[in-house]
Amino acid sequence: MAKITKVSPLAPAHFPVLPVIKGVSFATAAAGVKYAGRTDVMLAVLCEDTTVAGVYTRSSTRSAAVLDCQAKTGDEASGQAAIIVNSGNSNAFTGAVGIQSVQAITSAAAAALDMDANRVFTSSTGVIGERLPHDKIVSALEGLKSNLSEVNIADAAKAIMTTDTFPKGACASFDVAGKTVNIAGIAKGSGMIAPDMATMLVYIFTDAAIGQSDLQTVLDELTGPTFNSITVDSDTSTSDTLLLCATGKSGVSVGRENVQFREALRDVMLDLAHQVVKDGEGATKFVEIRVTGAQTEQDAHMHAMAIANSPLVKTAIAGEDPNWGRIVMAIGKSGAFADRDKLSIWFGDVLVAKDGWVNPDYREEDAAALMKLPEIVVRVDLGLGQSAKTVWTCDLTHGYIEINADYRS
Amino acid sequence: MAKITKVSPLAPAHFPVLPVIKGVSFATAAAGVKYAGRTDVMLAVLCEDTTVAGVYTRSSTRSAAVLDCQAKTGDEASGQAAIIVNSGNSNAFTGAVGIQSVQAITSAAAAALDMDANRVFTSSTGVIGERLPHDKIVSALEGLKSNLSEVNIADAAKAIMTTDTFPKGACASFDVAGKTVNIAGIAKGSGMIAPDMATMLVYIFTDAAIGQSDLQTVLDELTGPTFNSITVDSDTSTSDTLLLCATGKSGVSVGRENVQFREALRDVMLDLAHQVVKDGEGATKFVEIRVTGAQTEQDAHMHAMAIANSPLVKTAIAGEDPNWGRIVMAIGKSGAFADRDKLSIWFGDVLVAKDGWVNPDYREEDAAALMKLPEIVVRVDLGLGQSAKTVWTCDLTHGYIEINADYRS
Repeated sequence: MAKITKVSPLAPAHFPVLPVIKGVSFATAAAGVKYAGRTDVMLAVLCEDTTVAGVYTRSSTRSAAVLDCQAKTGDEASGQAAIIVNSGNSNAFTGAVGIQSVQAITSAAAAALDMDANRVFTSSTGVIGERLPHDKIVSALEGLKSNLSEVNIADAAKAIMTTDTFPKGACASFDVAGKTVNIAGIAKGSGMIAPDMATMLVYIFTDAAIGQSDLQTVLDELTGPTFNSITVDSDTSTSDTLLLCATGKSGVSVGRENVQFREALRDVMLDLAHQVVKDGEGATKFVEIRVTGAQTEQDAHMHAMAIANSPLVKTAIAGEDPNWGRIVMAIGKSGAFADRDKLSIWFGDVLVAKDGWVNPDYREEDAAALMKLPEIVVRVDLGLGQSAKTVWTCDLTHGYIEINADYRS
Repeated sequence: MAKITKVSPLAPAHFPVLPVIKGVSFATAAAGVKYAGRTDVMLAVLCEDTTVAGVYTRSSTRSAAVLDCQAKTGDEASGQAAIIVNSGNSNAFTGAVGIQSVQAITSAAAAALDMDANRVFTSSTGVIGERLPHDKIVSALEGLKSNLSEVNIADAAKAIMTTDTFPKGACASFDVAGKTVNIAGIAKGSGMIAPDMATMLVYIFTDAAIGQSDLQTVLDELTGPTFNSITVDSDTSTSDTLLLCATGKSGVSVGRENVQFREALRDVMLDLAHQVVKDGEGATKFVEIRVTGAQTEQDAHMHAMAIANSPLVKTAIAGEDPNWGRIVMAIGKSGAFADRDKLSIWFGDVLVAKDGWVNPDYREEDAAALMKLPEIVVRVDLGLGQSAKTVWTCDLTHGYIEINADYRS
């Protein structure tokens, strides 16, 4: 892993105070998988009747742990469950030995926790292609079990970090007939971020009562506008996993159409997704790309992602340069439909270009001032239809090169 | 434009000695379009009976000059022709004013050279979105006309440079029944390189006699494995243009099936394409990506381009790090079919991984030594079929960030 030199300038002021989610307890350990002097394993144990939904990377080279989680998701309607995650080694592209490591960890955890191995979900994140020393994780299980606590979620967020410069957490809650439903989530992710169906490692817990199939449906629908709408470097992880667990301990039952639950869950997912971008390797700017006026949502998404992934756009933003010509270039190459002479482009609320050329009233000093802010909005209206999409990214700086080229991983 | 600080470490030792192509003459001028103290306009004038073929960017935001060239290509079977190119301003995304600039230049050149404006092709390269001061180019026409010479092609290669750190030229020749056919070409390109149907600015001249439709057919077929198989930064220019002109002055007639002509032309195109990669912004390594064993050529191309465009692969190469896990990652995200457990990966002739895991005989010091060379071959065998593709790219370094972020364009 790259050397972590400092905290992202876009980091939140502090880790949020997350509510206790009844029915979930957490523990962490320093198992020495790769890193020294820090925790690198986290265990979450979930009570009876918990439902678990998951979305995963679509990478064709995804890891043994991802394949194992996929096979288990939805297999049981509900029950006790556990999640065990290590950082420092992704156990990806490790062949048959990788599968053995997953089996060793899940069967040992199932025995220690007295539950079915089919309910033990594992993730691994870190270097690709090295044998996972799973015995170190298995040896840590007894200590983890004895330290389980409902209030340890902040420690869990720290234990799963790799090149992250800050731990990521988010929460939301809502009331139904005097009862409160809480949702709390944690995430890791910094580079290799261009999720495709899922993202990074994300674990979200709620005490809502909701059936597995409804939980999966809501998760699938909310992944598109949240985690699948961010990118740091257009590279997709082999380990992307998002697990969403509902314990039912609030006593509030919700279904797939419940608006309060969907909105609260969406808030948590979007908050975590934004934190991942804000911890993008080398990031100094958080950038929102809004594309409106497209003929289809797919066109809007393709244009927005072409802008968000363009190295020339991202370096211009790093240089605080309102180089709108590069926005035009990215739209042109996206593969989605655009009419050059109907394009309008804004930086923040400054209209830079319209009708296929620079706005005659545009003054570069107005846009240049906006570019100095840490959060930048780029808006493009295609002038063709009613569809819109928003994605989020960061700038491309010397820091990204330093993290990924100057140090050996 | 970015500040040009030094010549690429991958530059050829010197500009090649290019043969005179009978029927073509060149002139250059310092018109002051944007740059001071250097030439920035080049004129090529082609004799009667010249056929002209072209391929162009498919960007939906392509420039007025590209649209004008596209409309003219193939419109006349043969005849006198002229090419006029300026650097410093791309006249892209300049609306109706951009069209007026193209018309002003082509009609003035047609009058000065006594030819049909439909046979005057123009290109512009440089900053996007600024009004082209076409009067400066028009004013330079008389001087250009009086300086035309068959031996000025090296000067022409210099006049079209923008962020290029060296001028690019290539040639090939072959004999038919005691007569020699010559091909000579020049190119510019450094950043915004991920051609889609064409590339950058490229002008190739031959004294072969070949009909316009045959010339276009051969050009279309050879663009795929040459210019459309390179990438610097995955960004596609709004101005990409390749014009291929055949004067017939060698007295040798060739058709679309002529193997000697195709091979010679392919050599010139591939040589120029490689030079563009070697002048990639900030490049310190020239990288060949060979993908074999794919089920289809499209799959092989998608995998090769995913590797070539991955920021994490490119920064690892910059850091001389044989980080094969990132190659696995890029294959996984490419969208093309792969079976993780059938993958083999080589750096140069060092087998790094096979059958879905690291080669048991792999010693990292062997691969690490290869990574220190200026030219690196990455080979991936998918183990699935017989299709193969090769593409070329460069590494991603601090130099790219410096050129595109640290200086205002």
